[in-house]
Amino acid sequence: MIIAVDAEGGDYAPREVVRGAIAAVRQYPIEIVLVGKKAILEMLLRRYSKVSGISIIDAREVVRDDEDPVQAVQSKPDSSVVIGARLVHDRVVDGFVSAGSTGATVVASFLSLKMIPGIQRMGICAVADLNQPQPTLIIDVGVNVNCKPIFLVQFAQLANILAEHVLEIKSPRVGLLNVGEEELKGSALAREAYQMLKKTNLNFIGNVEGFDVLRGKADIIVTDGFTGNVLIKTIEGYSEVVQELLELGELAGIDRYLTGPALAQYVQLTSVVRKLDYKQYGGACLLGLEGNIVIAHGRSRSTAIRNAIYLAYLAAKQGIVEALKASAYATE
Amino acid sequence: MIIAVDAEGGDYAPREVVRGAIAAVRQYPIEIVLVGKKAILEMLLRRYSKVSGISIIDAREVVRDDEDPVQAVQSKPDSSVVIGARLVHDRVVDGFVSAGSTGATVVASFLSLKMIPGIQRMGICAVADLNQPQPTLIIDVGVNVNCKPIFLVQFAQLANILAEHVLEIKSPRVGLLNVGEEELKGSALAREAYQMLKKTNLNFIGNVEGFDVLRGKADIIVTDGFTGNVLIKTIEGYSEVVQELLELGELAGIDRYLTGPALAQYVQLTSVVRKLDYKQYGGACLLGLEGNIVIAHGRSRSTAIRNAIYLAYLAAKQGIVEALKASAYATE
Repeated sequence: MIIAVDAEGGDYAPREVVRGAIAAVRQYPIEIVLVGKKAILEMLLRRYSKVSGISIIDAREVVRDDEDPVQAVQSKPDSSVVIGARLVHDRVVDGFVSAGSTGATVVASFLSLKMIPGIQRMGICAVADLNQPQPTLIIDVGVNVNCKPIFLVQFAQLANILAEHVLEIKSPRVGLLNVGEEELKGSALAREAYQMLKKTNLNFIGNVEGFDVLRGKADIIVTDGFTGNVLIKTIEGYSEVVQELLELGELAGIDRYLTGPALAQYVQLTSVVRKLDYKQYGGACLLGLEGNIVIAHGRSRSTAIRNAIYLAYLAAKQGIVEALKASAYATE
Repeated sequence: MIIAVDAEGGDYAPREVVRGAIAAVRQYPIEIVLVGKKAILEMLLRRYSKVSGISIIDAREVVRDDEDPVQAVQSKPDSSVVIGARLVHDRVVDGFVSAGSTGATVVASFLSLKMIPGIQRMGICAVADLNQPQPTLIIDVGVNVNCKPIFLVQFAQLANILAEHVLEIKSPRVGLLNVGEEELKGSALAREAYQMLKKTNLNFIGNVEGFDVLRGKADIIVTDGFTGNVLIKTIEGYSEVVQELLELGELAGIDRYLTGPALAQYVQLTSVVRKLDYKQYGGACLLGLEGNIVIAHGRSRSTAIRNAIYLAYLAAKQGIVEALKASAYATE
C-alpha cells in the first residue's frame, strides 16, 4: 500500500508533514511518497530519521491558499497537489493526502479522477476522531454550497459506506441536520431530503440539531456544503478555546484536585471535546471520485498528518471506491 | 415602563420566571405583569418576596413546546403567549418576554402585531451577553429557513438599529456568515446578499466564518434562519460542555494553581466562553414587528429571565420600533 502525501501543503509544511509521514510509516504497513521540493525533503528526511519506506517525487510548484483553485491547478501542472492527484489516477499510489488549499485539492482531484458512476456530486466527509471507538462523520463540509435534495441523499450513501467499511460502525445512524426534530421542519431542501432519506435502506434516524453533533446522536450527519462548512468552522473555533482550557487544567494539575463523580465528569468531558479537535482528527475524505483523497486541516501538525495518512490507508485497504462502485445508486 | 412576562413559558416555569421577574423589578425602573395561572403566581409571589411593581394577568391556557405553533395559537386565545402579545398590541405594556415555545411566540406576535412598513420578514436576533461591553448579535436564528437576499440585507438593517440604539455599539461591524472570506465565495444567496450589503450605508466588513463568531470579528452576524439556527444550537452544545469544564475548574480551585500568563489566559478564556452561555445572555429580539418581543431560551433560569426582561426594557426605553419605522427601508 503506497500513500502519496503533499509535502508542500499546510501551514507547517514541509516540516510537520515529513514528521507525520515518518510517524505513519513506523506505525502502519505502508510506504509513503512525499510530493514536494526534493532537495529540502531529502534534507529533512536525513535530519529527522533514517526510516525506510519513504520516497520523494519532485514538485517544482506549489498552489497557495490565496490562489484561485481552478486557475492555479490549471496553470501549475508541476504543483504538488496536481502531481499527487495524477499519481492516484495513474494507480501509482493507493491514496493521496494534502493539508494544502482545500479548493485546490478538490479541483485537482476532480480534474484527474472520474466520478463514481451514478454519483452526481463529490462531498467532503469530515471524520471526527478516527481513533475513538465511535467517530462522527459530517458530510458535506464544503464542496457544494448550493444543493439539491438528491445530493444530500447521495452524501448519506457515500458516508454510510465509509462508516461501515472503514470505521466498522454497524448500521450507522444517519441524521439530517435541521432546525428541529419534527419531520416537517426546515428549509425546502431539508424537507425534501428527509422524504427521500426515509425511502432509502439507510438507518435514517431523522433530523438532528446543532447541539446533537457533540452529543453523538448520529454517526453520520448529512447537510449541504454551506451549512456543513459553517458548522465545522464553528466547532473549530470552540475546539481551540476548549483545548486551551484543557491545557490550562493540565498545567494546574486539575485532576489531582478533583475526586469521585467530579473527576469522572472531567475525564468524560475531555474525551468528548478531544474528539472534535482538528489537531487530532483524521482529516476529511473527498468522496464520490474513483480514488482515495484525504484532506487534512491546513493547521495540521504531525499527529493530524499521521491520522490523515491512516485514514487514506484504511480507505484504500478496505476498498472504499470499489464498494461505492458496487452499490448501485440510482440517479433520479 | 411595563414589561409583560410569560410566566408559563420555559422548562423552569413558573418558579424561575417569577424569580427572574423579582430580580428585574428590584434592579431596573420597571413594572412587570406576569401572565399565567393567577392562583399559583400569587402563591409564588408571596413565597419569594413582597416586592411591589409586579402584577398578574390570568391566563387559563398554555401552549406547549410540542404543539404546532399555528394551530395552538389560533385555538388557545386564552394562553399566556397570546395574551402577552395582545397586551403589546393594545399598548397596555411596552414589551413582552417569553421563554416558551419560540414558534408560538413568533406566531402569536405576528398575528397580533403589524409588520414595520417596508420590512419583508421578521428575524430573530440573538444577543450574546448583553452585559458584556461588546455583545455579538446573530440574525436570523430561526424564523426564515428559506431566504431571499433582500431578507438578509433587512436583517442586517434591523440588527444595526438594535446594536446602535440599545447596545450603544457605534457603527457596528456587520459580517455576512459564509464559507470563506473572499467576496465571490458561497451559495447563490450569500453571494447576492454580499453585493447588496456592499451598497448599503452599513459598516459591512464582508464575509465571516464559523470560527469568527467566538473571535468577535463582527458585532452583527447576518445569515438565513436555517444556518443561524444550526449555528446557535452548535454554540449551545459547546457552551454546555465548556460551562461544565469551567465549573469543574472552579471546584478544583484551578485559579489558585495558575500564575502569571496562564492565569491571565484562563481569565480571558472564561470571559469569551461565558459570553456565549445561553444561561447568561439576554435572550433574542424578534425584530421587524411594531412591538418589543423578547424570546428567552427554553432552559432559562432566573438570571436569563432577568436579562431578557432587561433587553425588553432597553428596547422599549430606546424606542427601537420608532427608530426602525423612521429609517426608511426600500423594498426592492
